[in-house]
Amino acid sequence: MNIPYSDRKRIVVVGGGFGGLQFTKNLPAGMYQVVLVDRNNYHCFQPLLYQVATSGLDPASIAFPLRKTLRNKDEFYFRIAEVEEVLSDQNTIRTSTGDLTYDYLVLATGSATNFFGNDKLEQNGMAMKNIPEALNIRSLLLQNFEKALLTDDLKEREALMNVVIVGGGPTGVELAGAIAELKRHVLPSDYPDLDFRRMRIQLLEAGEALLAGMNKASSSKALRYLRDIGVEVWLKTAVEAYDGKAINTNTKTLPARTMIWAAGVHCKPPKGLDAEALVKNQRIAVDEFNRVKNYENVFAVGDAACMESDAFPNGHPMVAQPAIQQAKNLAKNFVREYKGKEWKPFKYRDLGSMATIGRRKAVAEIIGLKMQGAFAWLVWLFVHLMALVGFRNRLVVFVNWSYNFINYNRDIRLIIRPFEPTTSNGEHNDKFENSAAAEVKAE
Amino acid sequence: MNIPYSDRKRIVVVGGGFGGLQFTKNLPAGMYQVVLVDRNNYHCFQPLLYQVATSGLDPASIAFPLRKTLRNKDEFYFRIAEVEEVLSDQNTIRTSTGDLTYDYLVLATGSATNFFGNDKLEQNGMAMKNIPEALNIRSLLLQNFEKALLTDDLKEREALMNVVIVGGGPTGVELAGAIAELKRHVLPSDYPDLDFRRMRIQLLEAGEALLAGMNKASSSKALRYLRDIGVEVWLKTAVEAYDGKAINTNTKTLPARTMIWAAGVHCKPPKGLDAEALVKNQRIAVDEFNRVKNYENVFAVGDAACMESDAFPNGHPMVAQPAIQQAKNLAKNFVREYKGKEWKPFKYRDLGSMATIGRRKAVAEIIGLKMQGAFAWLVWLFVHLMALVGFRNRLVVFVNWSYNFINYNRDIRLIIRPFEPTTSNGEHNDKFENSAAAEVKAE
Repeated sequence: MNIPYSDRKRIVVVGGGFGGLQFTKNLPAGMYQVVLVDRNNYHCFQPLLYQVATSGLDPASIAFPLRKTLRNKDEFYFRIAEVEEVLSDQNTIRTSTGDLTYDYLVLATGSATNFFGNDKLEQNGMAMKNIPEALNIRSLLLQNFEKALLTDDLKEREALMNVVIVGGGPTGVELAGAIAELKRHVLPSDYPDLDFRRMRIQLLEAGEALLAGMNKASSSKALRYLRDIGVEVWLKTAVEAYDGKAINTNTKTLPARTMIWAAGVHCKPPKGLDAEALVKNQRIAVDEFNRVKNYENVFAVGDAACMESDAFPNGHPMVAQPAIQQAKNLAKNFVREYKGKEWKPFKYRDLGSMATIGRRKAVAEIIGLKMQGAFAWLVWLFVHLMALVGFRNRLVVFVNWSYNFINYNRDIRLIIRPFEPTTSNGEHNDKFENSAAAEVKAE
Repeated sequence: MNIPYSDRKRIVVVGGGFGGLQFTKNLPAGMYQVVLVDRNNYHCFQPLLYQVATSGLDPASIAFPLRKTLRNKDEFYFRIAEVEEVLSDQNTIRTSTGDLTYDYLVLATGSATNFFGNDKLEQNGMAMKNIPEALNIRSLLLQNFEKALLTDDLKEREALMNVVIVGGGPTGVELAGAIAELKRHVLPSDYPDLDFRRMRIQLLEAGEALLAGMNKASSSKALRYLRDIGVEVWLKTAVEAYDGKAINTNTKTLPARTMIWAAGVHCKPPKGLDAEALVKNQRIAVDEFNRVKNYENVFAVGDAACMESDAFPNGHPMVAQPAIQQAKNLAKNFVREYKGKEWKPFKYRDLGSMATIGRRKAVAEIIGLKMQGAFAWLVWLFVHLMALVGFRNRLVVFVNWSYNFINYNRDIRLIIRPFEPTTSNGEHNDKFENSAAAEVKAE
């Protein structure tokens, strides 16, 4: 893979998400040679993906060029590649652009959407784990309204306008809230010839409550907020099948041309790892130093890593904070290693969690404090703004949020892609022709 | 196409560029039924496309949702469709989503990149007339640097780093200047293992001078500015062939994996128009009222229209100003028509032209005044900022420009697309495998 040889030991980091980025940022220059590998040339701030999907932010605002984070750090390299396999007996990874040897390997490979093996769901549902997927959701939503204008079939028009979101975690809750705001403030004036009383936004959750990771008060407040702004929430409702037109659940059938799947993630570690190291959801079992089970020089952090403890028998939650904290601790341990000092085990500080539902509506639990409403919403805005990587991004997001708040608007409702008469979820648009026929008939 | 019937006469406007947008904005509600048709749901501010291509702006900053411009105007409709044919004997257009009848038809279909029938050029060269094309250029530029890191073949690496721009009009000049700034201020710290003295930016112009539409002083100043910031300019140099690896001209062969084609445009009007109405470059011949030759109720404005006059024997320049002014005049004439008044012929006010080369470097000719350097550059910034559609866009572009000016930076160097191991110009990346082989060999 054309990395210059060095006297320093080489650390290869796979993945430029929260874990991989924090690790490389926190490791000082001058001790190791570091190679960061990602399939994209940017870091993506996943907590705000839902705003890209709902026309509130452009992708560039939540993405940051990874090369820039390594600037001016001697012997820190970046390569775009897909990592395919770990050949640990040769201390080598095999990638789409060639092999690369390592002295230490840090896997920060994150997680992917889990459709639980249901191919039809995967084929017809929309995932939202990266920027192209968020843009696909934005395009599908907007294209479906354009199509709704073209049909005279009332049932079909309703199905095109309906949106079903599966999964009542923070992603599903925030997405449902954002779409409800679109319905309220933006879409009716964009599409004056559609009757938006017909548009339904439905959030399905298999469990008994929304935001399972938060306490009951937050969960029921989120439920009330969502219902207040017109989201229908169905608890204890599990999706069984989706053919692209109607969603079958254990209790009912919901016609909808858009189903967004935020109901679970699993890991997709590279091939070649010891089977004993792979646990539930394909996470990689690590010890308290983030060292992978049965390996000496392979580490995993973040979503990809499962560090069992008394407080977290199934590993830490698969969100940003554990990834960031583990990466920082691991970077410090590599400094200790370089200096010949003893490694320190990871200690998790739970900073809490939060979810925003809409204007002045959020729930938050931070260092033991429970907040709801406008104050929680301000805290949410502030925390997310500060967590963004890059000053320009913070500035642009702040401008967009201020503008959208004042104007009740989302100006980024753009379908930016080559014009294609098929939708992104693979369905052919017989609708267009039907409608042409309808017009001819009407003539 | 499902447009409600109305007592009012229906004007169908094809195209939401400068011409179509101005026409619909300037036509008051309450007189006609108006249907705006475009293949995209947004207006694209083409003069700043080159900044999207060179990582200075994100696409959302120069795009504006067309539906928003029609808001609150009674009986103004928008439809996404590709217009295929004009059936003028039936007063109908045939589109990808069905037929649509009209009382008046306004063609504002703009222009497309003209490769002069050279298929190889079209296949291997990059056009830059819309947002997806600008994003393709951005991705190709960045991907080629990533690839340059992976090869040990010096000639190949140089070809990957070289950029050739064909066409010395404002687009070519501004693009060359922006890429030179990337080379100077951004790329070397992003790719410390590449030697940027090897990167060549070459601008080819078949004619005798750059910026043929401007006077000699501006033209030679632009040439000096470009050479000052490291662009090699080849005048009287015409491209004959390009195989994706090397560009053959009448005088020399230039190895380059990136060739951007800004050397000409032509029109692609819908089928079905009278052959007599189509003139040079497939522009549509119109009279001084923008009425298409041999038609009573079909009009054309902007690039698509060719209005011959003493001052402009080949029609007006194919830029924004004639389109905007013709559209405004035509809208006023439709108001006069509604009120039973006489139509007024179009009169062109030449507001001048300008091109920016880089930081504090521009040339401008405005209402007879010639400006160069920092002042021309400030005027350029101000005029383009004010011409953008949408307050949010102006705000975000202002923030980005200020940030980039202060930091000598371009933070939007993101390759946002699904990961693909082939480049966007269709070439297969044997490079990746070669490099893997090189790595294995080096081991």
